[in-house]
Amino acid sequence: MKFIQTPVKGMQDFLPLDMELRSHVLSVIRDTYRRYGFSEIETPVMEHIENLSGRDGGENEKLIFKVLKRGRELEKGLKSGELCDSALRYDLTVPLCRYYSEHKNELPTPFKALQIGNVFRADRPQKGRFRQFTQCDIDILGDPSAMAEIELIGATTTALSRIFSEVSISAFTVHLNDRRILKAMAKKAGFEEKDYDEIFILLDKMDKIGEEGVKEELIKAGYDQGAVESYLSGFSLYRELTEGGVKLNGDALRDYLEKACGDTLEKEASDSLITVMDSSAATIDPSVTLLFDPTLVRGMSYYTGTIFEITIDNYSFSIAGGGRYDHMVGRFSGAETPACGFSIGFERIFTILRDLRWKAPESGEKKAYLVDLKGASGRIQEVFAHARAERDQGAVVTVEPLKKNAKFQIDTLEKSGYTSILKVYADTKLS
Amino acid sequence: MKFIQTPVKGMQDFLPLDMELRSHVLSVIRDTYRRYGFSEIETPVMEHIENLSGRDGGENEKLIFKVLKRGRELEKGLKSGELCDSALRYDLTVPLCRYYSEHKNELPTPFKALQIGNVFRADRPQKGRFRQFTQCDIDILGDPSAMAEIELIGATTTALSRIFSEVSISAFTVHLNDRRILKAMAKKAGFEEKDYDEIFILLDKMDKIGEEGVKEELIKAGYDQGAVESYLSGFSLYRELTEGGVKLNGDALRDYLEKACGDTLEKEASDSLITVMDSSAATIDPSVTLLFDPTLVRGMSYYTGTIFEITIDNYSFSIAGGGRYDHMVGRFSGAETPACGFSIGFERIFTILRDLRWKAPESGEKKAYLVDLKGASGRIQEVFAHARAERDQGAVVTVEPLKKNAKFQIDTLEKSGYTSILKVYADTKLS
Repeated sequence: MKFIQTPVKGMQDFLPLDMELRSHVLSVIRDTYRRYGFSEIETPVMEHIENLSGRDGGENEKLIFKVLKRGRELEKGLKSGELCDSALRYDLTVPLCRYYSEHKNELPTPFKALQIGNVFRADRPQKGRFRQFTQCDIDILGDPSAMAEIELIGATTTALSRIFSEVSISAFTVHLNDRRILKAMAKKAGFEEKDYDEIFILLDKMDKIGEEGVKEELIKAGYDQGAVESYLSGFSLYRELTEGGVKLNGDALRDYLEKACGDTLEKEASDSLITVMDSSAATIDPSVTLLFDPTLVRGMSYYTGTIFEITIDNYSFSIAGGGRYDHMVGRFSGAETPACGFSIGFERIFTILRDLRWKAPESGEKKAYLVDLKGASGRIQEVFAHARAERDQGAVVTVEPLKKNAKFQIDTLEKSGYTSILKVYADTKLS
Repeated sequence: MKFIQTPVKGMQDFLPLDMELRSHVLSVIRDTYRRYGFSEIETPVMEHIENLSGRDGGENEKLIFKVLKRGRELEKGLKSGELCDSALRYDLTVPLCRYYSEHKNELPTPFKALQIGNVFRADRPQKGRFRQFTQCDIDILGDPSAMAEIELIGATTTALSRIFSEVSISAFTVHLNDRRILKAMAKKAGFEEKDYDEIFILLDKMDKIGEEGVKEELIKAGYDQGAVESYLSGFSLYRELTEGGVKLNGDALRDYLEKACGDTLEKEASDSLITVMDSSAATIDPSVTLLFDPTLVRGMSYYTGTIFEITIDNYSFSIAGGGRYDHMVGRFSGAETPACGFSIGFERIFTILRDLRWKAPESGEKKAYLVDLKGASGRIQEVFAHARAERDQGAVVTVEPLKKNAKFQIDTLEKSGYTSILKVYADTKLS
């Protein structure tokens, strides 16, 4: 049978330099989240199919990789449910909810979880989009207050600031909105609740096709022209109020929400947004911009409150996103549990740093002993003992046979960061 | 649809304390292997089915989790090959060989690779055996000399010594053999090459059923009584020579091999074994026992030379194993590449340490601020700013709402290692 050298379609091999970068970024993320009191957990990459289907996971649910039941491939005419009872997870949120339901008696309340792991989507591969990729999620379960949002925004922006300051990227923006505000604006315009998801999908295109574009698409989709115009007037108002880079905070933001939503918005929602905006602004790194963004949608309909997304200047995609999902754990466990999470799109950050040719900081000396096995094979024990003593002191040391093509061997070692390279012949003194 | 709270059969959720232990052990392993000059790489958890089947992977190949082709589940009467073109990897060696074939022009020679990752086997779950588990492999590709074996044994035993010294386990044993010696002993007894695999499977039971048991099973399997007796006399001789704990090294080992194998063993094989034994003994931690073990088999028939396995006293299973497999990369790439690897069974080490109630070393202060949201909600900004300053200094700080059941909240925080816990009311001074 033929061997295939390339990785499975849409999946990545990582070379040593890639891995150094990935490990460094992950260690900064882990260290930051640890300081914020998050505890790392791990869940299996496989989940019960029942848990992954029909869970408001949006498009992702269509992209599930299903795993064949053992021994079932030989029978004929089986239906999907008989062929597969588990699948690869498409995010870390569903496994977290299952995990919390299963283990809540052993966990503190609120529970601040960090999960770093691979997720899988049978997406069409393209630049920066893969079929296996790493996500870094923090979630706070059991805290209904805005303090959860403030902690999540603080921790995520601090981790990103630490990572990007190394490549002199400091300008990034946290976009905030609330599903309740999204819904209140749609309700005020006269739309029906059953249409919200479709309307929000079209609204989400605002940054690409503009207000006029969204208007056209809503009308083309059959919505009433008056309702559409009323709906879009809320967004025009926001654009006017923030012209020239003005930011809406505190009372100005409250005024806007009253105008845009009227009495369709519960007071708790505007209170919460303003607390999150104001407290975060006062406590996060001053280089981070916090922005209320009424056009922010987020794909998953499981969100129930605050939603957020982080963008960096000069890049068209978001690098982190999340929000509050107060009903999802309850559906697993039967016990309602407020929950809020923020997920870093690790592959995007990795891609940005790699494109900027960023290198992980060097750590200490790297030495190589290249032993001439013709003349100095009797010295092997001595060289290994010498290397062992240096390794015990923390140095990076490799011991290898000297190759015929010594120049090439030395070149590649130097490329890997080895600075001290010694060829060991019968009479070479070890230093 | 019903939600299922438990993990998929045979797979594990890890609680925060488990994860602290796992992360600590992995960091010791990574640090040790880095000092030995190994570079970390990563490959996808999915592989082409062609690469996983018919690869001398022994029993493991029967335990493959196959992944359904996207969109294929709806058609009827498909055969296995049409349903699936990829599967979850069952080890890290096959992906490494594919990786090396694909990227060899970008890698140094010899290439010293470290790979830590999950592998999957649809095994019958039992204590210490899981369907998803972590392996830590080091491999040296491109070095045909015994230096590769010495580096691998040195690095693996050093990592294990560092890990187990923390729980006062120091007694472990490296069992060494060579596939060429196994074969030479079988050849000398008069067995045919086609029967070797079956004979070795029976020989592998020696530690459970003894020499008499192996003899009975070989005869029951239809082998000639004279050949069986001749075969077993080689092992009896070894038992006699090592009675009372005598170890065979150097010339004594060479003598034994001549008696047990005669001229069916190539000189290179005994030279290699003796170099590995003697150089390793001189350079590894003195607490590690190195033992030539003619009954050591290892399951995979892809091994071509040295094979090794590590056991610890009082445990019946091995905690690491590996060997030389000089033809596997060649079959992928067409270019023969000598290769040798050593794999740590991470889950077994984790289980041993957890059973010994080992705890990861604490690192620094952990503080909690519990804010009374009734009386002190106006102080949120102040508390978050205060916490931020402490986090910037490296402290672990959590900020949470004070729960109604404060005693329970504080108890669980203390269990998680928080030593300084402050309830924040309207008039509390932050320290």
